[in-house]
Amino acid sequence: MKKPILTIVFALCAVLSLNAQNSMLAGHTENSPVVNPDGTVTFRYYDPKAVKVQIRGDFLPKVSMQTNYGVFDAPIYQDMTEGRDGVWTFTTGVLIPQFYSYILVVDGEPKLDPSNVYMTRDISTLANCFIVTKEKGDRGSLYSVNDVPHGDVAKVWYNSPSLGMDRRMTVYTPAGYDPNGSKRYPVLYLLHGGGNDENAWQEQGRVCQILDNLIAEGKVVPMIVVMPNGNLTEQAAPGETPAGFFMPDMMRSGKPASVSYEESFPDIVKFVDRRYKTKASRKYRAMAGLSMGGFQTFETTMARPELIGWIGLFSPGPLIDWDDPTPAYDQFKANTRVMAGLKKVFDSKPDLYFTAIGDQERTQDLYDLNKVLGEIGFQYQTFTTTGAHEWRVWRDAVVEFTQKLFK
Amino acid sequence: MKKPILTIVFALCAVLSLNAQNSMLAGHTENSPVVNPDGTVTFRYYDPKAVKVQIRGDFLPKVSMQTNYGVFDAPIYQDMTEGRDGVWTFTTGVLIPQFYSYILVVDGEPKLDPSNVYMTRDISTLANCFIVTKEKGDRGSLYSVNDVPHGDVAKVWYNSPSLGMDRRMTVYTPAGYDPNGSKRYPVLYLLHGGGNDENAWQEQGRVCQILDNLIAEGKVVPMIVVMPNGNLTEQAAPGETPAGFFMPDMMRSGKPASVSYEESFPDIVKFVDRRYKTKASRKYRAMAGLSMGGFQTFETTMARPELIGWIGLFSPGPLIDWDDPTPAYDQFKANTRVMAGLKKVFDSKPDLYFTAIGDQERTQDLYDLNKVLGEIGFQYQTFTTTGAHEWRVWRDAVVEFTQKLFK
Repeated sequence: MKKPILTIVFALCAVLSLNAQNSMLAGHTENSPVVNPDGTVTFRYYDPKAVKVQIRGDFLPKVSMQTNYGVFDAPIYQDMTEGRDGVWTFTTGVLIPQFYSYILVVDGEPKLDPSNVYMTRDISTLANCFIVTKEKGDRGSLYSVNDVPHGDVAKVWYNSPSLGMDRRMTVYTPAGYDPNGSKRYPVLYLLHGGGNDENAWQEQGRVCQILDNLIAEGKVVPMIVVMPNGNLTEQAAPGETPAGFFMPDMMRSGKPASVSYEESFPDIVKFVDRRYKTKASRKYRAMAGLSMGGFQTFETTMARPELIGWIGLFSPGPLIDWDDPTPAYDQFKANTRVMAGLKKVFDSKPDLYFTAIGDQERTQDLYDLNKVLGEIGFQYQTFTTTGAHEWRVWRDAVVEFTQKLFK
Repeated sequence: MKKPILTIVFALCAVLSLNAQNSMLAGHTENSPVVNPDGTVTFRYYDPKAVKVQIRGDFLPKVSMQTNYGVFDAPIYQDMTEGRDGVWTFTTGVLIPQFYSYILVVDGEPKLDPSNVYMTRDISTLANCFIVTKEKGDRGSLYSVNDVPHGDVAKVWYNSPSLGMDRRMTVYTPAGYDPNGSKRYPVLYLLHGGGNDENAWQEQGRVCQILDNLIAEGKVVPMIVVMPNGNLTEQAAPGETPAGFFMPDMMRSGKPASVSYEESFPDIVKFVDRRYKTKASRKYRAMAGLSMGGFQTFETTMARPELIGWIGLFSPGPLIDWDDPTPAYDQFKANTRVMAGLKKVFDSKPDLYFTAIGDQERTQDLYDLNKVLGEIGFQYQTFTTTGAHEWRVWRDAVVEFTQKLFK
């Protein structure tokens, strides 16, 4: 018997294999990106016809842009330099350990790097990505797959009676979780932002790697993490529903769901407590979300404080009317529904009320929320980290938040 | 409270969002591909600078290519036509319902279609993909997500004592599967080919959609499908191991595993029977694989016939020495190890011995194996379908095979 046929591919490349067993390598690919020993990163792209090649990435300096929703970082376009061989290159400064993403811009047209097979998808938005890590425990290492026990990740369908449909969620069960065992686990319900779906925390959030690593270090209590789809009129991420492989209408339908997020949320809790080995009580349930998911967490914990003991709002919003010039603090105080809701949460004595934000975001409403929480008597905790309304902030937040849970 | 920020993206496009909450749409994308009402498909690609744009896809005519491993289909390069607006187009003939893949070739360089966010990955080989479907029950429909109950798909880590490492598998559990219920299920162990990994049957094989659809129609018995990683020196697919996000060495290491596939396989069965609600006996266990996985199935069922009752070899190989000019039949007959092994399988009275192959493959050794099986007394079943050594054959094979199982 001979060695079976193997497909040998010599470089990271983006070429077609119509025939998985006989892929024909074609096209010009470079070794790109490369993390150099000094901590800089070099990108290479072959295109002798191009007049101008640029790179846009979250490791480049940002241009602050004031919008109605706060100060955001607009990407800058960094020119790459053409060599005689038609290979354009750019080398960054020393990059701190992090998960980074980028694309190329070739004569004004955005392109994926043909030499880097790794990318993330956010609806229809693709970006190449890479990780810089220097040593164990740094951010890059925390976001990497390390030689530690791994939890399982499942795409799970459940029925939502309140929404009248089957819906998809991502569920992380920690290493050692045994559906037939007697050990029970606390649960973190982790919500994505507007425009994301049930894949986002796994893919852009790297939350499964973060938990694998922090659990292995003993810094995080082993827990189940449930990542539902927060878009109430949708069953699942694009491509995972009968809408099929095409997405003719990429826009959110805009049609409102029949019920609110907080009304539909108990369907998820019921399913999870029935399906998994959970500690099915408030003291062992956490809920956190980013942006839209932070808003949903804010509302759900006010509506059902008896369900959730540990609360995390990461860059939540909008919590107030941003078109209203009234200061956030005054808007909160004038909103009797919210004030009564927060009082109800406070009276229920949550184990943790945690808020987090990036220092380049519009921060005043969260800081004013903190002030309101303090006045009510919450021993809230707040966390500010470097960044705008972006994933590096939310990865930081989940690293911080999960280490506090169930302790 | 205002509506949370949504990222609105207007077209299928491959552009960067560094900031998931504020993706900035940029670049020129087309509506591509489009399945036209007459069943043709139109591709569009904007590139006014290009001198020549071609498309390569598995819906185009093939050029047969004789190799040592049989006759394979070499892709042809179809020229696209430039319009005045810099948009290159190509419209196919009427395509039969199927899952198709393609790339663009721009002045000789392979490129992904920037207008189509959907792609499959095979190690480092990317291709755009799309599905053509005309009516319920056709191949395109069978490979699509339909409005039927969905099974769950999990990426599961198990420990392999024989290989001395934690390894990753994909596990499909059918709709209705309940880890806390009393219902038990048969298991199909489904093996990938050389160059693939534990993601391949799910992604290129569309096997989760196939089973969801065929189970919903009552054509397939609800079963668990276990898709292990068949590369014995690897833990998991690229990017899912401590080798990390880069794949500096894309080649198979070539270093042999300490044990054979058939020696390591029982680790998987033990884990699955412990973890899942299985019917833990031979009568409720099937094993099938494509290409290298067919070879592994061939060997494993000879080594451990007491484990597996239902056997499927899809384009298996090589089962003989292809460099040896001796006819396959004579090679089989002269191989006392294989003849004794097959006799052992036969004596164990398997429920099914099923072989499948594409009519454009090197078929003689499988046909000669069938002949040998017949002489031994096997009531084997064989299935030939249109295609080369490629996924459309293996999707056909699994559709055929799974409908026979456990009945």
